[in-house]
Amino acid sequence: MAEQLPRAVELVRRLRSIREVAEVLDGEGELFPYEADAFTLLRGRALAVVFPLSARAVQEIVLACNAAGTSYVARGAGTGLSGGATPVDGCVLIEFSRMNRVLEIDVTNRTAVVEPGVINADLSEMVAPLGLHYAPDPSSQSACTIGGNIAENSGGPHTLKYGTTSPHVLEIEVVLPDATLVKLGRRDGHCAGYDLRGLFVGSEGTLGLVTCATVRLVPDPETVCTLLASFSSLVGACEAVAGIIASGVLPAALELLDDRTIEAVEASVYAAGYPRDARAVLLIELDGAAQGVAEERECVERVCRERQAIDVRAAVDEAERAALWRGRKGAFGAMGRLAPDLYVHDAVVPRTRLPEVVAEINEAAARRGLRLANILHAGDGNLHPNISFDRRDANQLQRVREMGEEILRICIEAGGVLSGEHGIGIEKRDYMRMLFDECDLEPMRWVHDAFDPEDRCNPGKLIPTPRACAESNPRHRGYAKVEF
Amino acid sequence: MAEQLPRAVELVRRLRSIREVAEVLDGEGELFPYEADAFTLLRGRALAVVFPLSARAVQEIVLACNAAGTSYVARGAGTGLSGGATPVDGCVLIEFSRMNRVLEIDVTNRTAVVEPGVINADLSEMVAPLGLHYAPDPSSQSACTIGGNIAENSGGPHTLKYGTTSPHVLEIEVVLPDATLVKLGRRDGHCAGYDLRGLFVGSEGTLGLVTCATVRLVPDPETVCTLLASFSSLVGACEAVAGIIASGVLPAALELLDDRTIEAVEASVYAAGYPRDARAVLLIELDGAAQGVAEERECVERVCRERQAIDVRAAVDEAERAALWRGRKGAFGAMGRLAPDLYVHDAVVPRTRLPEVVAEINEAAARRGLRLANILHAGDGNLHPNISFDRRDANQLQRVREMGEEILRICIEAGGVLSGEHGIGIEKRDYMRMLFDECDLEPMRWVHDAFDPEDRCNPGKLIPTPRACAESNPRHRGYAKVEF
Repeated sequence: MAEQLPRAVELVRRLRSIREVAEVLDGEGELFPYEADAFTLLRGRALAVVFPLSARAVQEIVLACNAAGTSYVARGAGTGLSGGATPVDGCVLIEFSRMNRVLEIDVTNRTAVVEPGVINADLSEMVAPLGLHYAPDPSSQSACTIGGNIAENSGGPHTLKYGTTSPHVLEIEVVLPDATLVKLGRRDGHCAGYDLRGLFVGSEGTLGLVTCATVRLVPDPETVCTLLASFSSLVGACEAVAGIIASGVLPAALELLDDRTIEAVEASVYAAGYPRDARAVLLIELDGAAQGVAEERECVERVCRERQAIDVRAAVDEAERAALWRGRKGAFGAMGRLAPDLYVHDAVVPRTRLPEVVAEINEAAARRGLRLANILHAGDGNLHPNISFDRRDANQLQRVREMGEEILRICIEAGGVLSGEHGIGIEKRDYMRMLFDECDLEPMRWVHDAFDPEDRCNPGKLIPTPRACAESNPRHRGYAKVEF
Repeated sequence: MAEQLPRAVELVRRLRSIREVAEVLDGEGELFPYEADAFTLLRGRALAVVFPLSARAVQEIVLACNAAGTSYVARGAGTGLSGGATPVDGCVLIEFSRMNRVLEIDVTNRTAVVEPGVINADLSEMVAPLGLHYAPDPSSQSACTIGGNIAENSGGPHTLKYGTTSPHVLEIEVVLPDATLVKLGRRDGHCAGYDLRGLFVGSEGTLGLVTCATVRLVPDPETVCTLLASFSSLVGACEAVAGIIASGVLPAALELLDDRTIEAVEASVYAAGYPRDARAVLLIELDGAAQGVAEERECVERVCRERQAIDVRAAVDEAERAALWRGRKGAFGAMGRLAPDLYVHDAVVPRTRLPEVVAEINEAAARRGLRLANILHAGDGNLHPNISFDRRDANQLQRVREMGEEILRICIEAGGVLSGEHGIGIEKRDYMRMLFDECDLEPMRWVHDAFDPEDRCNPGKLIPTPRACAESNPRHRGYAKVEF
C-alpha cells in the first residue's frame, strides 16, 4: 500500500498532464456517480475518471495506465444494463462523453463518421432533414452513445428488420491495449482479411477502445404504418407473432407488452391508450413502399384476427403513431414508478417457445412474491422480464437475484441464449457457463489474450475466468458484491 | 530428407488407419489435379489428399498432422479464385467433398444444417419445394461448396440485397488447430461473447476447419422481375447504377456487362439475346411483393431512360428470365472460348468511381495488348475484370501478372479494396500491404497466432508474413511460383 499510493498519485498527475484531456476527476464525491452503469447490483470505485478529447489522448491514457500497471474501463453514457462499464476498483475510467462530434455525413454513400460519445438519437435527428436515419434504436437512444452501442452490439425494437449494431458499423478506429491506433473494417463495407471489425463490435471494451466509427445511414421508408393489436391472452399474442413471421411479412418492429406492462404504462405519463383490459398488446410497425405496406397491413390484420385479437387498429397520423411508441419506449420509466429499483432482464428464446417461457417466468416470479412485467421484442424471441423491487429489503433483493438466475435457466432450457442485446458484462459473466462449456470458452480467451495479454482492458467482463480461480476468490478481479 | 521420408510414410499410414476416412490419395497422378484450385498461377504438391466423412475423422487428421509436424489445407470444390485451397508443398490436403449431407431442414425457423461439402445450388434446389432458398449465389454455385463459401465469405449477384455469406451463417462447428471441436455462433443468430462465428467466416481456413454449419434459408420472393437495359456508353450504364441506388430502390441484383463480355456471351452457347451493338448492358433484378416490384420497376425504367438507355425490357416469362441470367452466369465460360486461360480478377471501388476506374483498367489492358472484358456486380462497386490469355506465351503471362497488380493499384487509388468476394488467398496475400500498413496487419497476426501458433492450418494464406521474411525468401512457406 505504501508503494501503491505514490504510484496512483503519479498516474493521476500524468493523466492531468495529457494535452487533449478535458478533465480528470478523482474526488471522493466526484467518483461516486461512476461506480456503476445502469446495472447497479455490483459497483466498483475508479481511481480517476478521465475525459479524453481525441484518439491521441486515448493512446496517451492507455500508455500511462500501462506504465503504471493499472486497468482501464471505457464508459459512454452509462446506460448499459449488464455492467459493461462498471469500474474495476482502482482502475482509470475513460469517459467518452466529450468525444461527441459528428465528423462527416456522406449523403451519396449514406454514411456518417462519428466520435464514440455521439448520442444515438442525436445522429438520427441530425440527418433527418436528409431523409436518413441511424437504424439501431435501443430504448435508451436519447441518452446512450454510439460507442457504447458498438461495445454492446446493442439492439432495439427495429432490430427485427434492420439488425443489431454490428451490420451498421462499417469501420472503426481503435486504440489497442498496446496503445497503437488501428483501423478495422472499411468505410465501403468490404472487408479484406479477418473481420476484426465484427470481432470488436460486441466485445464490450475488452479488446480495445473505439475512438471513431463510420456507420451506415438508412433511407427513411416511404411509408410507415404502426398497428396496435390487443389480445385476451398472452398465448394468442405469441401465436400472432409466429403467424406474422410465418406469413413472410417482415415487420420493422414487432413488440409485445403484457398486462402488467400495460397497467404500468397507462397509469403513468407515458399513457398511450393501450386497452387496460387486454392481457397483451402487439405493437407492429410496417415500413417500405406505400403499396407494399398496404398489402402487408392487410395480411397482419388477418393473422391477428385469426388468432382472436380483440382489436386491431392503425395509428391514423404521426401524432397517434408517436403516442403508441411513447408507451413502449416509456415502459421502463413507467415501471420505475412502481418501486425504487427496476431490474431489466434480457434473454432470448426461439420465437415458438415464447408462450410457455413467459408463463413459466411469470409463475416463478409469483412463487417468489415478485412483481414482474414483460416487454418482448417478440419478433426476435427477445424477452425483457422486468422486476420492480426495493433493494433496501435484503430478503427481496436476494429473491430478485435468484429470480434473475432462474430466468436465464428457463430461457436456456428452452434453447435460448443469455442476452439479446444488453451484453454479458459482469452481470452474466459467470452465467456464460450455462451456455458454453470450458472448451467453447477457450477460443474467446485466446482472442482476448492475443489483444490484451496483461488483462488491463476492462478486465473481468464478458468471459468467465477459468473455474478454479473464480471459485477460490469471490472478489476476484476487483469486483465487490453489494452487501445483501 | 532421410528423416523426412519415413515420417511422411508413417503419416500417410496413420491417415489410412482413421476409421471415418473414405480415401487417402498419394499417387503421383492422383495428386496432380489437387495442385491448385481455380487460381492456377501458383501450385503446390500435397503429400496426400484425405477425404474425411465426419468431424471426428477431421479431428483425427489434425491430430495426426500435429504429431507429424505437417501442415494441412482444407479444400471444397476447388472453385476458389484466389488460391485459398492451394496446397503447401508436402501438406495434407483435406478434401470435404464426401461430407456432403444436408442433416436438417427447419421450415419454421428457416434454417438448414449442412456438412461443408454440400454444393451451394443443391441446397437451394432441395428446399425449393418449400418456397425457400439459400441466398448467397456465387457464379460457381452449381459446383462450389458451402464450406468453401464460408471460408471465402463468398458473394454473388444477389449480394447487393442479401449480403455475402457471413450474415447467412448462424452457427458453425469447427475443428480448431489443437484438434478440439467447438461450436461458434448460435442457431438462432443470437451471439453471446465475442462473435467468433463472424471471425471464422472469411478466414480462409487459416483458423480451423468447419465441419458443420447452420445456415439461414430465405423465403422466395412473391414476385421477381428481371430487366435488361442497354446503353451506348459504359459511363451511361454506370450513371444509371448510381441513379437507381440513389432513388432508394434496392434491387436484388444489379449487374453490368461491358461490350467485350456481351460479344463473348453472344458468340457462345450462353447467348442470351444481349444487344450486340450496346457498349454495356445492365441486368437488374427486382424482387418482393407484386405491387412493390411494379413500383420499383417503373422507377428503374425511368432512371435508365433518363441516363440515355437505348432500350429497357423486362423478361416476360420465366424462360426469358432464365435466358438473361444464363448469359451472365455463363460469361466466364464464354470467355473461356477466347483463349486457353482466363484470369478472373476481383476488386471493389466506391460505386461513384466505377466509370473512370473501368476506363482506366481498359486503357491499361490495351497498352499491354491484353484482351480484357468486364463484368461488374455494379450495385456493390465490385468489378471482375477478366483477362483471356495463353500461359504458354511467357511474355503474355508476364504482362497478365503485371496487369493484375495494376488493376489492384488503380482500384485502391480510387479508394477501393483488394477483393469483393474471392478472398485474398495466396493470390493477393502480399498485396494486403497496398491496403494495410504493418500496424493494421499486426492484430490479424495476433488472432492467427492465438488459434494456430504452430502455423500449420493453411499456412501462408491471407496474411503477409512480416516484410523481412517475405523479401528474403521468395519461396517462403512452400509456394513455388510457376515457371514464367
